[in-house]
Amino acid sequence: MSPNADFLGRDVVSARDFKRDQFEQVIQGVEDLEKRRGSLDGALKGKLAALLFFEPSTRTYSSFQIAAEKLGMRVSGFAGPTGSSITKGETLHDTLRMFEGYGADVFVIRHSKMGAARFAAEISDTPVISAGDGSREHPTQAMVDLYAIRKAFGRVDGLKVGMLGDLRYGRTSSSLAYALSNFDVDITFIAPDALQMRPEVTQLLKQRGVTAKKESALKNVAGELDVLYVTRIQKERIPDPTEYEKVKGMYEVNLEALREAKPSLKVLHPLPRVDELSTDIDDTNYAQYFVQAAGGLPLRMVLLNLILGGVG
Amino acid sequence: MSPNADFLGRDVVSARDFKRDQFEQVIQGVEDLEKRRGSLDGALKGKLAALLFFEPSTRTYSSFQIAAEKLGMRVSGFAGPTGSSITKGETLHDTLRMFEGYGADVFVIRHSKMGAARFAAEISDTPVISAGDGSREHPTQAMVDLYAIRKAFGRVDGLKVGMLGDLRYGRTSSSLAYALSNFDVDITFIAPDALQMRPEVTQLLKQRGVTAKKESALKNVAGELDVLYVTRIQKERIPDPTEYEKVKGMYEVNLEALREAKPSLKVLHPLPRVDELSTDIDDTNYAQYFVQAAGGLPLRMVLLNLILGGVG
Amino acid sequence: MSPNADFLGRDVVSARDFKRDQFEQVIQGVEDLEKRRGSLDGALKGKLAALLFFEPSTRTYSSFQIAAEKLGMRVSGFAGPTGSSITKGETLHDTLRMFEGYGADVFVIRHSKMGAARFAAEISDTPVISAGDGSREHPTQAMVDLYAIRKAFGRVDGLKVGMLGDLRYGRTSSSLAYALSNFDVDITFIAPDALQMRPEVTQLLKQRGVTAKKESALKNVAGELDVLYVTRIQKERIPDPTEYEKVKGMYEVNLEALREAKPSLKVLHPLPRVDELSTDIDDTNYAQYFVQAAGGLPLRMVLLNLILGGVG
Repeated sequence: MSPNADFLGRDVVSARDFKRDQFEQVIQGVEDLEKRRGSLDGALKGKLAALLFFEPSTRTYSSFQIAAEKLGMRVSGFAGPTGSSITKGETLHDTLRMFEGYGADVFVIRHSKMGAARFAAEISDTPVISAGDGSREHPTQAMVDLYAIRKAFGRVDGLKVGMLGDLRYGRTSSSLAYALSNFDVDITFIAPDALQMRPEVTQLLKQRGVTAKKESALKNVAGELDVLYVTRIQKERIPDPTEYEKVKGMYEVNLEALREAKPSLKVLHPLPRVDELSTDIDDTNYAQYFVQAAGGLPLRMVLLNLILGGVG
Repeated sequence: MSPNADFLGRDVVSARDFKRDQFEQVIQGVEDLEKRRGSLDGALKGKLAALLFFEPSTRTYSSFQIAAEKLGMRVSGFAGPTGSSITKGETLHDTLRMFEGYGADVFVIRHSKMGAARFAAEISDTPVISAGDGSREHPTQAMVDLYAIRKAFGRVDGLKVGMLGDLRYGRTSSSLAYALSNFDVDITFIAPDALQMRPEVTQLLKQRGVTAKKESALKNVAGELDVLYVTRIQKERIPDPTEYEKVKGMYEVNLEALREAKPSLKVLHPLPRVDELSTDIDDTNYAQYFVQAAGGLPLRMVLLNLILGGVG
Repeated sequence: MSPNADFLGRDVVSARDFKRDQFEQVIQGVEDLEKRRGSLDGALKGKLAALLFFEPSTRTYSSFQIAAEKLGMRVSGFAGPTGSSITKGETLHDTLRMFEGYGADVFVIRHSKMGAARFAAEISDTPVISAGDGSREHPTQAMVDLYAIRKAFGRVDGLKVGMLGDLRYGRTSSSLAYALSNFDVDITFIAPDALQMRPEVTQLLKQRGVTAKKESALKNVAGELDVLYVTRIQKERIPDPTEYEKVKGMYEVNLEALREAKPSLKVLHPLPRVDELSTDIDDTNYAQYFVQAAGGLPLRMVLLNLILGGVG
């Protein structure tokens, strides 16, 4: 069996669609690439990546752009809605047909509407990678997150993972929870009631035998965690400004909030951050988020290469 | 005579400026390229294309960008007005001088002002290709349109072509009419009175002996046409909203509107479309617009190569 | 000593930080490159330039982008604030860490906040080049300006240089004054009182023994100058509209304003211009500003190559 039989020509639209073996294959690929830097350079020479970012994202866009170019691909598309056909009312269907006509070998799609990537995958024969859509899914980020956990601990099994912030609308949290459901982990969702993890996610975890509980305050569990995954609580999600200020303070992660934490705790964050993760963590051993961020580039190189069947 | 003597160093600012032979040379080039895919890759290596899109257009921008990069060119400039000097009030003259100073080998200019590309061609020694300007001209789109017609029928002569929509302000329609004036075709302009084709276009057709008539409703001629070229009626062109709703309905092309059409009818559209062309046509034999769109890439490769004298 | 010992790995954040020898080394590099065109092509193959333009600038962005690509570098980042993480409130620190993680070999930073490039240089081990920040510094433009002066006269020493316009807030003027402080020149600052050169600049000139005086009107000194460096007076700097109209007229440079000028006078302008420099100068021997603008590309190639230690 070819090493990428599971990935060749495949769409990546939900972390739900991948099994443990597949996550491990991608992470292994990144670890190999880190040992043999440059080994994928030019592996997809002559191919074309269409990056269609209907919603802007410097971080995800740049990692895909640099990944594709290091692989030798040409890059086309747009980094945000300005100037794109979408402002003239063109449908996603027609935009995809256009880039298919121009020879796109893969679509990388960021969209504010839930299900946009899935829809794209259904109507196009070209592989579609979601770069985040709606408030549900950001599957490649989940792969990056898993990679950062394994890099810190050498394993994923056996860890206690806290996920904190806006779990209801935060797409990275859902995707990471789906990914973690393939491992023997113990998850605590830490959020105000209004922003707790959605039922379809907790139900899947239960089906797959993963222990998951809900907490309203970090301080109740800070001492038990191996991994703390922090995400932002967006002001617009909490209609009452007084309530927002209260919530914001309760979920800000700083050294004081980690007073009881294990010395081996690793803090992750998909970034960008605003106030929810204090810079006083940056120079401590807790900080794993810059390692995590840097993993975005090799991981996306490996993933593109698996999907498009490059050499190396 | 060199095969590109007619094109070497030439500006492309109006479809009026080209003769039948020249349109055929470009189309022939595309047909050759389709037979020998990759034969132009790298032909303009080291040259620089300055894409100056003062008005955004994903479709035209992307096709020129990918075309230039496949030819081996570097690409600079901007895909829309945001961030461009134009927002600081710089003149087109100074913007051109800047990119000339940076070594641009060709300008591709999209501008909302009529005549901008012609002006650029007059003041610059560097070849200028219009990528659409004002409401008058989009000459490379006309070449793409001709190509799509020939691809469908093997010829252009002898066809009955209907052009429908906003013919007064739609730049692709004028340019296609100019291009068609070199062929033995029969044209019907289908539009409400307020948006009928401009006199300077119909006069040129008359001078060149092309039969052209005006119609106010598609249903009167749908059964006779070989080609139906559909364009959008923009809401802002019809001041009265009630009138707009009426007109919009009358000029929407869907299967019902094509009930009387010949089975061999081909529907073209420069895209993007909104409501004026129904997706119920997409999977029928009428639909030629995705083939047409895909032609934009090889056609622009061939054109750049003829103008810049690449090998191959 | 290696030819680029003074530049290898170095930050370029202020023209104050460079000595005469170093300015001359860069200019000499440009003159060499003009003699041996193409000699630096591909010299930095495989390296990555992160262009972070938090403030848009077609001219500076394009020259860095083309320079980097001609050197063989990949380019990433953003050409303006739209779509960048900055709109989500990410700090400059985190943006830099992201691109460090993606392997950036150099940062080129344009920012509206004074000191942004200096701050970036302090927190990052990756070389930082300012592409203009706040109203204080644009060091690579000053190098381009010096180059244009030397190209016109074969030397910088012994020249009488007038600097006109908004000297208080114009970043190119401060940077050029710093650069000129290393040469034996005679400077006249021509501006309304409210926009005269800042004390820290005139004090540095004094310390370094450069003669500098202030004038309120061009006509008082037009006949003495070898070089006239023109910059824009922005409307928003002069609160009183009547006052603005008066000032604007007084500082507009056109043939009439240069009636008394020496035939050998050279007019420079960092561009883009609006009304402050009349196009009636363009075709005269006074105009050095298009030569100056074109110098931006080779100069930035030479500078990147010195800093990143490329071959050639």
